[in-house]
Amino acid sequence: MPERMSIGQARRAEALGRQVLLQGWVRTRRDSKAGFSFLELNDGSCLGNIQVIAPAELDNYESEIKHLTAGASVSIEGVVKESPGKGQATEVEAARVVVHGTADPENYPLQKKRHSFEFLRTIAHLRPRTNTFGAIARVRNCVCNSIHQFFQEEGFLYIHTPVITASDCEGAGEMFQVTTLDLADPPKDGPRVDFSQDFFDRPAYLTVSGQLEAEIFACGLSKAYTFGPTFRAENSNTARHLAEFWMVEPEMAFCNLEDDMALAERLLKRIFADVLEKCPEDMDFFNQRIDKTTIETLRHIVDSQFVRLPYTEAVEILSASGESFEFPVAWGNDLQSEHERFLTEKHFRCPVIVHDYPRTIKPFYMRVNDDGRTVRAMDVLVPKVGEIIGGSQREERLDVLRERMLEQELNPDDYWWYLELRKYGTVPHAGFGLGLERVVQFITGMANIRDVIPFPRTPGSAEF
Amino acid sequence: MPERMSIGQARRAEALGRQVLLQGWVRTRRDSKAGFSFLELNDGSCLGNIQVIAPAELDNYESEIKHLTAGASVSIEGVVKESPGKGQATEVEAARVVVHGTADPENYPLQKKRHSFEFLRTIAHLRPRTNTFGAIARVRNCVCNSIHQFFQEEGFLYIHTPVITASDCEGAGEMFQVTTLDLADPPKDGPRVDFSQDFFDRPAYLTVSGQLEAEIFACGLSKAYTFGPTFRAENSNTARHLAEFWMVEPEMAFCNLEDDMALAERLLKRIFADVLEKCPEDMDFFNQRIDKTTIETLRHIVDSQFVRLPYTEAVEILSASGESFEFPVAWGNDLQSEHERFLTEKHFRCPVIVHDYPRTIKPFYMRVNDDGRTVRAMDVLVPKVGEIIGGSQREERLDVLRERMLEQELNPDDYWWYLELRKYGTVPHAGFGLGLERVVQFITGMANIRDVIPFPRTPGSAEF
Repeated sequence: MPERMSIGQARRAEALGRQVLLQGWVRTRRDSKAGFSFLELNDGSCLGNIQVIAPAELDNYESEIKHLTAGASVSIEGVVKESPGKGQATEVEAARVVVHGTADPENYPLQKKRHSFEFLRTIAHLRPRTNTFGAIARVRNCVCNSIHQFFQEEGFLYIHTPVITASDCEGAGEMFQVTTLDLADPPKDGPRVDFSQDFFDRPAYLTVSGQLEAEIFACGLSKAYTFGPTFRAENSNTARHLAEFWMVEPEMAFCNLEDDMALAERLLKRIFADVLEKCPEDMDFFNQRIDKTTIETLRHIVDSQFVRLPYTEAVEILSASGESFEFPVAWGNDLQSEHERFLTEKHFRCPVIVHDYPRTIKPFYMRVNDDGRTVRAMDVLVPKVGEIIGGSQREERLDVLRERMLEQELNPDDYWWYLELRKYGTVPHAGFGLGLERVVQFITGMANIRDVIPFPRTPGSAEF
Repeated sequence: MPERMSIGQARRAEALGRQVLLQGWVRTRRDSKAGFSFLELNDGSCLGNIQVIAPAELDNYESEIKHLTAGASVSIEGVVKESPGKGQATEVEAARVVVHGTADPENYPLQKKRHSFEFLRTIAHLRPRTNTFGAIARVRNCVCNSIHQFFQEEGFLYIHTPVITASDCEGAGEMFQVTTLDLADPPKDGPRVDFSQDFFDRPAYLTVSGQLEAEIFACGLSKAYTFGPTFRAENSNTARHLAEFWMVEPEMAFCNLEDDMALAERLLKRIFADVLEKCPEDMDFFNQRIDKTTIETLRHIVDSQFVRLPYTEAVEILSASGESFEFPVAWGNDLQSEHERFLTEKHFRCPVIVHDYPRTIKPFYMRVNDDGRTVRAMDVLVPKVGEIIGGSQREERLDVLRERMLEQELNPDDYWWYLELRKYGTVPHAGFGLGLERVVQFITGMANIRDVIPFPRTPGSAEF
């Protein structure tokens, strides 16, 4: 019995001499005049193909093998041999080739020529079969795994915060509504929809963040993180926005902003180090084909110490920079992408964590500093993309929190349970949010965020 | 500087003699006549508390420590000593006690008496602070981690299938609709809602399964799994149903039903073995307080070999059993929970995988056997709950798949991309679905599924 093996395994020198069963999809077929064919086979276990030599003596050589085209699926039994070719340690001499499915070259959309990413988005059911999207899938998997391992090793509990939520307080107009009512004829109570007849007896929405619920778990079990889908019904057709994306949100009790910044730095370094170590072939591919600086950038970040920069100093540096920015720099304005990139790319040339922002531009839950003007917020800025992580120490003082809600015209009654976390055994605590797709985009260098998630959801688009 | 440590770490003998900083919530305070107080402290890192001895000499002994009540949050600095008490290796003699937050015993809902799980559901923001819900959070975390590790070690890629989907084909009436239209006054095109003005230019829903999309990745990258939220708008107010729950769905190319059953058996054994090994204290708690058979049941499953039982034989066994079932047993009927439980609890006394069900009771995507009457479906049955995993080998033959769609009155055009997976390089493949909450419920013995998810969503309920 031949040993079933992935192509990734069969490409390693340790596989030499083994009788193997390989299964995958043909990338190319080339016929030699010497009376045999070369098949390049891929199974997604790695970027590279394995070369299979199919001799003319095989039963189905003329009837099937010589007609194999890109996309056909096959099982190969044979022996792993040393490859005389460059850039590959092994090849397989086939003793048997079973064809499972053909792919008519007249219709099969993935022919050898390069396709635009726009086109590939229209065939998202086939794009995982390409080099680029296979590599993205492996890198994304590596990042997810790295995130889970990191938090598990740090003693965090993985928790699932709800996707459907009844609090529309935070996201306001940018939330999707979830309903089982008949939209063509909803039950009415006067001019208004009678939501007591809806599934949840009230209006319900898709969550924009699991932070508030994660705080519940931190304020009782100390360390928790969420890793789940979040949603924005924002009508932004850009290369940086998705209506549905995955977010990681750790939350730690007995923790201040300094601990929070340290955690964010450790997490990013861990993710980048893991990707460089575990996906070298895929990263070489991105570095050659997509963004020639990506490996160097990631390595540099892993080795650097992130700068801590108070917002007030950031404003001073930007004001004194002599750069002509599109958006004005002034204390009290939020930093724009151009400002963030100047700080991290030109001024410091390494990741920068800007902290203690003006209270007026940040949400109610961030802890107010003694100066009364700033809050314990922090944003981690990296080259090329600017902000990649946003977080804060949370306001743990009941009276201050309530005051901040009123200041931002929120109704404290809507947050009764959030306030009770401060009423009973309140603790200093902090956390942050990391958008998974932004990270994968940063690592791979892909220009459009729609290409780093399997099935992007954007305005007008929910195919597959 | 004292060393910051979790209570889980400080309870171990290795911590003896160390100067530590512990932070957590007071469970109880007891004052000794000898002039000191005992504090039982918990931080969620483990089920057990650590005993802290707070001597009267502390500055704030009279002013604060003697007023500490359940739920108050504190930081303790002190030295870890051998405990003279039973059932605990260590205790901490406090040199400093800092009180972060009090919890007024007049109002704090979590007093020492036991609370009903129904009541605790109404304070889901505080229930993680109880023994039971802390233990559930740790076990659930362990299960999730075990699932990820298992699939990573087996070479699967973790993929995120979309939560928002435009195909309402499968779930029919049981799907939640997702919209940004104004429900009180939706745009109309004649009598019908004009969905071209909705966010996605068409009606959109919450997914009921990521399987079809997972097949896309298996049919190109060989092995993939999803682990994400899924939804049912079913109006079922039972102890076994949630409107939002987490599902794991692996999918493997070049794989038949036998491989699929073997994968399911390995996965379940791995999860149960990990929980027994990594959460012994929590599992003892569940075994004592919730279900006295749970540890024995899990151990037995880890050590057993799952029975493979064709559906037709299952019907014969049930018919010959002499049991009086509520639902009739006949070839062609689906197995009911009572039948499943008889097979696994009474007849075989171990997990049973029933396979090859009648084609008429199973979905279109399951592979039709040569007999024409049955499909390559399988359900894994375990004691107490019956079905815990459901899966199948998928129909990889384009013509048969199309025929099955028509047979079940589905429109093949709606599944154009799913059919193309069979048109181009089709492969035998298989997969299954595992409901996370069902697994956690089975492990912990909790009677109501609402208690094994942080914030349950059920008809009429979307609080927090």
